[in-house]
Amino acid sequence: MLTTTNPRTGVSAATELKPTSLEGVDAAARRAAGAALELQSRGREFRAQLLDAMAASVENARERLVATADAETGLGAARLNGEVSRSAFQFSLFAEAVREGSFIEAMIDHAGDTPLGAAPDVRRMLVSIGPVAVFGSSNFPFAFSVLGGDTASAIAAGSPVVIKAHGSHLLTSQLSFDVLQAAADAVGAPPGTFGIVYGQDAGLALVKHPAIKAASFTGSLFAAESLQSAINTRPDPIPFFGELSSINPLVVTPGAVSARGAEIASGLFTSFTGSAGQLCTKPGIAFIPAGDEGQALVDEIAALTSDATPQVLLNSRIRSSFGEIEERLLAAGAAEVARGDDPVVDDAVADDAVAAGGASAAASGGFTVAPTLLETTAADFSAELAEECFGPLIVVARYSSLDEVREAFGRIPKSLTATLHVEDSEADVVAELSSTLEASAGRIVFNGYPTGVRVTWAQHHGGSWPSTNSQHTSVGVTAVRRFLRPLAWQNAPAAALPEELRDDYTAIPRRVDGTLVLPA
Amino acid sequence: MLTTTNPRTGVSAATELKPTSLEGVDAAARRAAGAALELQSRGREFRAQLLDAMAASVENARERLVATADAETGLGAARLNGEVSRSAFQFSLFAEAVREGSFIEAMIDHAGDTPLGAAPDVRRMLVSIGPVAVFGSSNFPFAFSVLGGDTASAIAAGSPVVIKAHGSHLLTSQLSFDVLQAAADAVGAPPGTFGIVYGQDAGLALVKHPAIKAASFTGSLFAAESLQSAINTRPDPIPFFGELSSINPLVVTPGAVSARGAEIASGLFTSFTGSAGQLCTKPGIAFIPAGDEGQALVDEIAALTSDATPQVLLNSRIRSSFGEIEERLLAAGAAEVARGDDPVVDDAVADDAVAAGGASAAASGGFTVAPTLLETTAADFSAELAEECFGPLIVVARYSSLDEVREAFGRIPKSLTATLHVEDSEADVVAELSSTLEASAGRIVFNGYPTGVRVTWAQHHGGSWPSTNSQHTSVGVTAVRRFLRPLAWQNAPAAALPEELRDDYTAIPRRVDGTLVLPA
Repeated sequence: MLTTTNPRTGVSAATELKPTSLEGVDAAARRAAGAALELQSRGREFRAQLLDAMAASVENARERLVATADAETGLGAARLNGEVSRSAFQFSLFAEAVREGSFIEAMIDHAGDTPLGAAPDVRRMLVSIGPVAVFGSSNFPFAFSVLGGDTASAIAAGSPVVIKAHGSHLLTSQLSFDVLQAAADAVGAPPGTFGIVYGQDAGLALVKHPAIKAASFTGSLFAAESLQSAINTRPDPIPFFGELSSINPLVVTPGAVSARGAEIASGLFTSFTGSAGQLCTKPGIAFIPAGDEGQALVDEIAALTSDATPQVLLNSRIRSSFGEIEERLLAAGAAEVARGDDPVVDDAVADDAVAAGGASAAASGGFTVAPTLLETTAADFSAELAEECFGPLIVVARYSSLDEVREAFGRIPKSLTATLHVEDSEADVVAELSSTLEASAGRIVFNGYPTGVRVTWAQHHGGSWPSTNSQHTSVGVTAVRRFLRPLAWQNAPAAALPEELRDDYTAIPRRVDGTLVLPA
Repeated sequence: MLTTTNPRTGVSAATELKPTSLEGVDAAARRAAGAALELQSRGREFRAQLLDAMAASVENARERLVATADAETGLGAARLNGEVSRSAFQFSLFAEAVREGSFIEAMIDHAGDTPLGAAPDVRRMLVSIGPVAVFGSSNFPFAFSVLGGDTASAIAAGSPVVIKAHGSHLLTSQLSFDVLQAAADAVGAPPGTFGIVYGQDAGLALVKHPAIKAASFTGSLFAAESLQSAINTRPDPIPFFGELSSINPLVVTPGAVSARGAEIASGLFTSFTGSAGQLCTKPGIAFIPAGDEGQALVDEIAALTSDATPQVLLNSRIRSSFGEIEERLLAAGAAEVARGDDPVVDDAVADDAVAAGGASAAASGGFTVAPTLLETTAADFSAELAEECFGPLIVVARYSSLDEVREAFGRIPKSLTATLHVEDSEADVVAELSSTLEASAGRIVFNGYPTGVRVTWAQHHGGSWPSTNSQHTSVGVTAVRRFLRPLAWQNAPAAALPEELRDDYTAIPRRVDGTLVLPA
């Protein structure tokens, strides 16, 4: 039996869920393979209708989803309601993109004479890569889990999904799967369009299954390596899209400190402590000028941090890692500047927890930690200080010159984001830092905070290793490219072509003989 | 010292080239890294001009290129002139695509209220991934080597290239590199835009170098595995795009045999023996109906094969593999139906060769083989019979029903292409085979031959493992996507944006607030 744990107390309870057997994984993967051909043959409009139904089904189950997830994640109703909205929005956005149709990259080159001689008719579009294994994340029980962007983009591509539920929110995952299945039933999707498996062994078996043609994952480098190793044992390699580890450096210029230090203190505090700092885009390092104005900014962040109440982390592993990494950062030379209230043990809850067998976590009041502000200098900044700490902790690095910042960036692993707070009057600073910022991350944020990832067409939530292992985003419409493969037809009769590649089809943007043509 | 070998005689000669040292590899990779930023900053028009100069430089050197390559590959002047034209055309086509600008996927989402609340301005485009290692192939000394599509698409992306010369045509590679460098000099490209290294150890060092951000390769599964293993030792994985192994099954329907058997015999013979069968798209298996009309078609192919003169293979490894695989196919149950003339030893040449130290190859008249036709039945078709044999050999499989064909396809590795010869009156056959063909390959050819890959926008030269390890093509304009990464800017001042993402830029197709907008 699998258990569910309340992170606020550390108390675990039995569920009716069992780890999925190897036979169960095999059955889910085979059902998905069966659904793949059928989904592809039903065409784009059916997938759009399915995505619309998924959005509606999520909204229908909002209250139960939030209540279930709150008990399993401690993220709170406000944040979880926002995440439910985001999940529903993602499904709707992908429905819109599927109808718009650009993403299949339809191209037609008619037969004709070319500088290289007579050439055949060649037509190309992107089609589903086949069934996709989706690994739910710990920190987004909806938007990066069963109901998340990977599921949305796979279905948009026409790829059935088999989801591996994250162990931190099993009941949420189970309920989420029911929500998907209700949508599938509402539109009559082929059996096997959605599948779910539970347990780490099932996840490993899933990525090794011959019917699975791609995998996507949001989580730790360590877990990703385990999945990649399993994939490497396949006779046929499959693409593995991982969103992994990110430090998200942030730089505040002298001008920005001077113009709006207090505002930045408040914004930065909110950004590194929101969702208990458990966001892949949490700013982990902030470069702040040396000197009095920079000091005032640090003092304000310190005051906010000292006043902060304890925060609940998602599970015991994240809780213990937080403590270990904090110790390593201190050992590497960071100084503790401020620390919020330490967790208070509620004796009654602790007693209940001990009685229920949740002893050690409950004795510390659940998986709670104090928000923490550490400090170093850019000159002293070492690779050891650039370790990602998942939770409400930030390292401030004080700098005396932009050269120091650039050099320190050389010791920071590539990230999903890099942020610059800068004034309009400092165009020279932007020019001096642009290439450093662009090389360091997949998204450059100006005068804002990297947390809060807009779900839209132009979004890029990705970056160089180790932030991801891919050349693609996992948020926004172009995430669909991960689950597609090109297919070309040469001199094909119209009946053998998908409708989007027939001469008389004009409902989507296409490239015809090299020229992009908008819908009629 | 490295040697060059004439495959027509097997005679080797010393060159002035040495294997590139580790220091030399390091220097080339560092120069490429230096060029990367500069290339990106010069923008698209500069890259287009560079590509135009590359096309012109290739044409300028045509005679020397063909003569040098003919001596090293034995492919003959006609084929090599065509390949030079193709290389030049590829550079020009990519110049055109760079100017057209769609490939950077420029997208702008303005700030505004959304169903999820106020959202920031987000803009995205694709930028160079950084320096690319390009591995030249044995069988295309121009179009898939130093002057090939990988070089063209990398430069289009703004990525400097460091090329590993193929050992079978070192002097051609050296001359080709001079051709590239002349183009770079003509337009003042940054130093390090092009680099070249020689020797297998240099190739392995290249893909392990921190400055190299992607690698592309056309060649054998075995060599690809060696490169992938080297890449796996990197702390930061990089994408590796390999075009590897392909059987290219071809099916002839009863209607097609009946309507145009003789034409198909001639076309199929030309396709499997052209370039001595050393094409990745060579049809390796042909399904031909049982019965008299099918027999007549096989007899005609057999007659053409028996009359064929010996063909020169590219190098001794390909020559010895050809013999070994032919033996394995016979051992697996294929029957020899026809065989062309065996190579004749020219005593004078052989004497010269022995004197020059090229004894064993020269004694057999160079790396020549006889074109060969083998036969089996679809019912007996085993995985062992689906081994790729690089050279002028085809296996014919006689079938009694489409079910037999579909089942046999299940034992054929996924390929770059699958071909169907079918009559208009056989729409039912197309319907019955479509999903099998589409699952088996990246390009479906109707009533033609898979050899002869049109270089155009809609081309897809790729496919599922083991034909490639990627979701991309290596021929045609979309090959450029391999060497790009997305980059997003949030709330960026106009001065910090590439010109393509500024509000007032309208020279390329862009997606603005979700709507695709053509150039003004």
